[in-house]
Amino acid sequence: MSENENHERSTVSVLGLGQMGTRLAQAFLVAGHATTVWNRSAAKADALVAQGAVRAATVEEAVAASPLVVVCLPDYPTVSDLLEPVAKRLPGRALVNLTSGTPEDAVRSADWAAGHGADYLDGAAMSGTRLVGRPEALFVFSGSPKAFATHRVVLASLGNSVHLGADPALAPVYDTALFGLAWGALAGFYHAVALVGTAGVAPAAFAAVATGHMPFVTSLMAGHARQIEGGRFPDDDGTVEVHAAAMEHLLDTSRARGIGTDVPELIGNLLDRAATTGHGSSGIASVIETITKGERNA
Amino acid sequence: MSENENHERSTVSVLGLGQMGTRLAQAFLVAGHATTVWNRSAAKADALVAQGAVRAATVEEAVAASPLVVVCLPDYPTVSDLLEPVAKRLPGRALVNLTSGTPEDAVRSADWAAGHGADYLDGAAMSGTRLVGRPEALFVFSGSPKAFATHRVVLASLGNSVHLGADPALAPVYDTALFGLAWGALAGFYHAVALVGTAGVAPAAFAAVATGHMPFVTSLMAGHARQIEGGRFPDDDGTVEVHAAAMEHLLDTSRARGIGTDVPELIGNLLDRAATTGHGSSGIASVIETITKGERNA
Ligand SMILES: NC(=O)c1ccc[n+]([C@@H]2O[C@H](COP(=O)([O-])OP(=O)(O)OC[C@H]3O[C@@H](n4cnc5c(N)ncnc54)[C@H](OP(=O)(O)O)[C@@H]3O)[C@@H](O)[C@H]2O)c1
Ligand SMILES: NC(=O)c1ccc[n+]([C@@H]2O[C@H](COP(=O)([O-])OP(=O)(O)OC[C@H]3O[C@@H](n4cnc5c(N)ncnc54)[C@H](OP(=O)(O)O)[C@@H]3O)[C@@H](O)[C@H]2O)c1
Repeated sequence: MSENENHERSTVSVLGLGQMGTRLAQAFLVAGHATTVWNRSAAKADALVAQGAVRAATVEEAVAASPLVVVCLPDYPTVSDLLEPVAKRLPGRALVNLTSGTPEDAVRSADWAAGHGADYLDGAAMSGTRLVGRPEALFVFSGSPKAFATHRVVLASLGNSVHLGADPALAPVYDTALFGLAWGALAGFYHAVALVGTAGVAPAAFAAVATGHMPFVTSLMAGHARQIEGGRFPDDDGTVEVHAAAMEHLLDTSRARGIGTDVPELIGNLLDRAATTGHGSSGIASVIETITKGERNA
Repeated sequence: MSENENHERSTVSVLGLGQMGTRLAQAFLVAGHATTVWNRSAAKADALVAQGAVRAATVEEAVAASPLVVVCLPDYPTVSDLLEPVAKRLPGRALVNLTSGTPEDAVRSADWAAGHGADYLDGAAMSGTRLVGRPEALFVFSGSPKAFATHRVVLASLGNSVHLGADPALAPVYDTALFGLAWGALAGFYHAVALVGTAGVAPAAFAAVATGHMPFVTSLMAGHARQIEGGRFPDDDGTVEVHAAAMEHLLDTSRARGIGTDVPELIGNLLDRAATTGHGSSGIASVIETITKGERNA
C-alpha cells in the first residue's frame, strides 16, 4: 500500500476476529458504523463481510482504514507482534485494546502507543460475548480521555461503555476486581443451591427467588462504599457479631446436611477477624479492613 | 377476658414490637389493615397506636383480636413461652412466625400449632428493616398453603411475599441460603473495593460501576440453575480452566498489592477441585458438584 492509499475508509477497524472480536465487529456494524475487519485466518471475516464489513488484506491496511483501531487478541505479546511492524500508521489514531491483560501490560502498551503518536485506551469486556451490543454489556475503558470523548458514540454501540479515568491500568484492575465480585456472588449462589437442594428444592425454583433478592443485595453496595470511604461503620444492616452468629448457623446447617463448608467458613473467618479487631458491634462493611490490611487466616 | 369477648376486632395482630415487629405493624397499617399490637414493654406500642393500631393489653387479647397472628420475637423458645398459655385461642387462626430459627424449630412450631388447631406459616424477612412495606423487601413463607392463600393480600403489604411450599422448614432453609448468597456477593465486593483501592479508586466510584455489573451477574444464575438441574455444563460463560487462570491472576494481583487473599483463594480452590474432578473444560456451574459432594480442601 502506497502512502497516498492511506485514506480512511471506515469509522472503526477491528483486528482479531475470535469469539469476542467477531461480536465487537458485529455490534459496530449493527449500530451502522462503517467497519473494517482483519483476522489472521481470513475466513473468520467472511460472515462479517457478508454483513457489510470491509475486509482488510493486511494488518497495515486495517490500521490505516480507520481513525479508531480496536484490537482483541489472546494476549499483549500478540498485540505487540502485530502492531510493531505497522507503527508508522498509528499517528493521530486512537488505539483501543480489548485484549485481557495485567495493569502492567496496559501501562506498557499505553507508553508504546504514545511513543508512536497514538491515543491509547485499554479496555475490558465484562459481560461475556452473548450480550455484546446490548446496553447491559459492561465495557470498561481507561487511558486517553480524548480518545474516549472522540469515539464515545462508536464505543457505546458495544454496550454500557464506561471511561474509568486517564490511568490505563484502571481497566485491567477493574477487570480482575469485577471478576472477583462476580465470583463471590456465584460462589454464594452455588453454595445456596447446594443447601436448598438438601431440602428437595430444585435449583431453578431457588434461582427464581434468589434473582429477586439480588437487587436488594446490590443496593447495599453503594451505602457500604460510602461507609468505607468515611471510615465509619454504622450498624444499619446489622452488626458484625449478629452476622457472625448467623454465618455460624449457615456453617452448622451446611455441615449437618453434608455439603461443602468453604463458603460459610471463608465468610465466618472474615467476620471473626473483624470482631477480633474491635468491630464486633460495628456494621458489616467494617470487614473491608480485614482485607485491606492483608491479614491472613491462622 | 371472658369467652364471649373473643371477637375479632382487627385483620392482623402483631406480637413483638422490636426493630422488625414495629416495621411489620407499620406496613400493615400503611396498607390500611386494621392492626392490633402487643409488646412486653407496652411503651413500644405507643407510636403505632398513634398511627391507628389497637393496643392489646395481654397476649391473649392480641391473639384473639385477629384471624391472622404475626409473631416476631428473638427466638422460638420465647414464642413458645408466650403462646403456650393462650393456645386455646388459636383454633381457626393463622399463626405466622417471623422469628429467625432453624428448619427444626419451624417443623416443631408447625406441629405444635397444628396440634392447637392453627394454620401455621413460618417466615423470614430477607431485606432488613428499612425496606419493609416496599415491593423490593423479600419475605419468604412456608407451611400451610391455605393460610398463605387466605391472607396473601395482608402479607403482600410487607413487600415481595413469596410462598415457598407446604414444608414449614423451607423458609428457614431459604433464609440461611439467601444469607450466604448475599454474603458471597458482599465478600466479593469488599475484596474488589480493597483491590481497586490499591490503584487509588474511591469505593463509591467503584460501587457505581459494580452496581451496574450486578444485573449481568444475577442474570447468570437462572441459566446456571437450569444447567445444574440438567447435570450438563456447557461452557457458554467460559470454562472452569479459563476461570481458574483468571482467578489465579486475581490472587497474584491481590498478593502483589498486599491485600488479603481469602476470597480469590476460596474461589480458586473451588475451581481447582472442579478441574481435578474432570470439569476443566466444563462450564463454571459444574463447581456446584464440589459443594454438593461436601468435599473439603486439603
Ligand atoms: N470470549 C470471551 O468471552 C471473552 C470475554 C472477555 C474477554 N475476552 C478476551 O478477549 C481476547 C480475545 O478472546 P477471544 O475469546 O475472542 O479469543 P479466541 O476466540 O481464542 O480468538 C483468538 C483470536 O486471536 C487471533 N490470534 C491468535 N494468535 C494470533 C497471532 N499470533 N497472530 C494474529 N492473530 C492471532 C486468532 O486468530 P485465528 O482465527 O487466525 O486463530 C483469533 O482471531 C482475550 O484477551 C480474552 O481474554 C474474551
Ligand atoms: N432487625 C432485623 O433487621 C431483622 C432482620 C431479619 C430478621 N430479624 C428477626 O426478627 C426477630 C426479631 O428481631 P428484632 O430485630 O425485631 O429484635 P429486637 O429489636 O431485639 O426486639 C426483640 C423483641 O422481642 C421482645 N422480647 C424479648 N424477649 C421477650 C420475652 N421473654 N417475652 C416477650 N417479649 C420478648 C422484645 O420486647 P421488649 O421490647 O419488651 O424488650 C422486643 O419486642 C429475630 O428473630 C430476628 O432474627 C430481624
